[in-house]
Amino acid sequence: MRLRKIPNAMEILKEHSDYVILDGKNNKGKWHSFFCNLNPIHLEIGMGKGQFITTMAKNHPDINFIGVEVVDSIMVKAIRKYKKEEKLANLIFMLVDAKELENVFEKGEISQIYLNFSDPWPKKRHEKRRLTHHSFLQIFKNILKEEGEIHFKTDNEKLFEYSLVSMSQFGMFFNFISLDLHKSDFQGNVMTEYEERFSQTGQRIFRVEAKFK
Amino acid sequence: MRLRKIPNAMEILKEHSDYVILDGKNNKGKWHSFFCNLNPIHLEIGMGKGQFITTMAKNHPDINFIGVEVVDSIMVKAIRKYKKEEKLANLIFMLVDAKELENVFEKGEISQIYLNFSDPWPKKRHEKRRLTHHSFLQIFKNILKEEGEIHFKTDNEKLFEYSLVSMSQFGMFFNFISLDLHKSDFQGNVMTEYEERFSQTGQRIFRVEAKFK
Repeated sequence: MRLRKIPNAMEILKEHSDYVILDGKNNKGKWHSFFCNLNPIHLEIGMGKGQFITTMAKNHPDINFIGVEVVDSIMVKAIRKYKKEEKLANLIFMLVDAKELENVFEKGEISQIYLNFSDPWPKKRHEKRRLTHHSFLQIFKNILKEEGEIHFKTDNEKLFEYSLVSMSQFGMFFNFISLDLHKSDFQGNVMTEYEERFSQTGQRIFRVEAKFK
Repeated sequence: MRLRKIPNAMEILKEHSDYVILDGKNNKGKWHSFFCNLNPIHLEIGMGKGQFITTMAKNHPDINFIGVEVVDSIMVKAIRKYKKEEKLANLIFMLVDAKELENVFEKGEISQIYLNFSDPWPKKRHEKRRLTHHSFLQIFKNILKEEGEIHFKTDNEKLFEYSLVSMSQFGMFFNFISLDLHKSDFQGNVMTEYEERFSQTGQRIFRVEAKFK
């Protein structure tokens, strides 16, 4: 997601320290204490404007949700949207690079990871930046519980092809694949802002639920 | 592929015993002697009218090809087409049920398997008949070399979704996936009769190259 840089983004984020975490390292291994419960913790990596994770948190009060974003200006957009809503005890936002997730979460601390419309980085030389590259899968494996899953959806056909190959070669297997999500009988799809706009063009959304062996 | 039953199909097949094998059991473990060379052996399971396997055999004289079909009337159709052509030393047809392949081939005797536009058997109660069901994958694994691959293509979205899930759960991984083969940069695609007709409608062909671990 690209948008104009907001000059005082960090200042705005700091004003919302009740639900915006700028440095999660101190809570590593203590996130259940942070949420004051033992409910599972789900991450969305690349939360964008936050519609998906906010809706998920509303729909699943017995799950803790952490929306992760690396770009401060994008997170400000999410905050501006979320500010208008009633705050949820089971939702926080965190400014962090996906590369750093092992510094923020203990092994097995996370139950599920969502990747929604991740940047496709179409150029071969940028392959390592794709969130389904082996180096990221290794990080996700390290912070997920053994039974943990990655739920990934995208409109980008090439990224989906790449991701299925990459995940299978990393030793993951699939419990669900849809090659046309909005025309499938999949129940309970929660849409992102981008997905809502994009789906009006009638183009396909691809979705997979993948698990480590 | 469905077609009208040809009443004397078996008689017609018997007339072409130079390249049509009706009982392959006797050659189990001896297929390299049969072809009089040590070239790799590739199977197409469900060869239909045979355009794919015949073209492949022409393009790759250093590979032995066996076109497998279970319905005698369909194989007669393939014979009628092939009769008009110059015979190839590296191509035979075999009438056999895919369930019986272990009785016909020794462990590791086959280097590659092609599944092209296999019957999707869309009803859940017919799942076991799909050629990418675990029971068939087990058979394919048993006759393939360790490095052997399955190359599968289909226009049936639901069958492709099912197959990726089934193969990954069986412990296979993917080296190549295309979600729109005819629009991809994949080189050297050899089309089946069905694919040629179907592709004119502009619909997608899905393709995967899968390997056992």
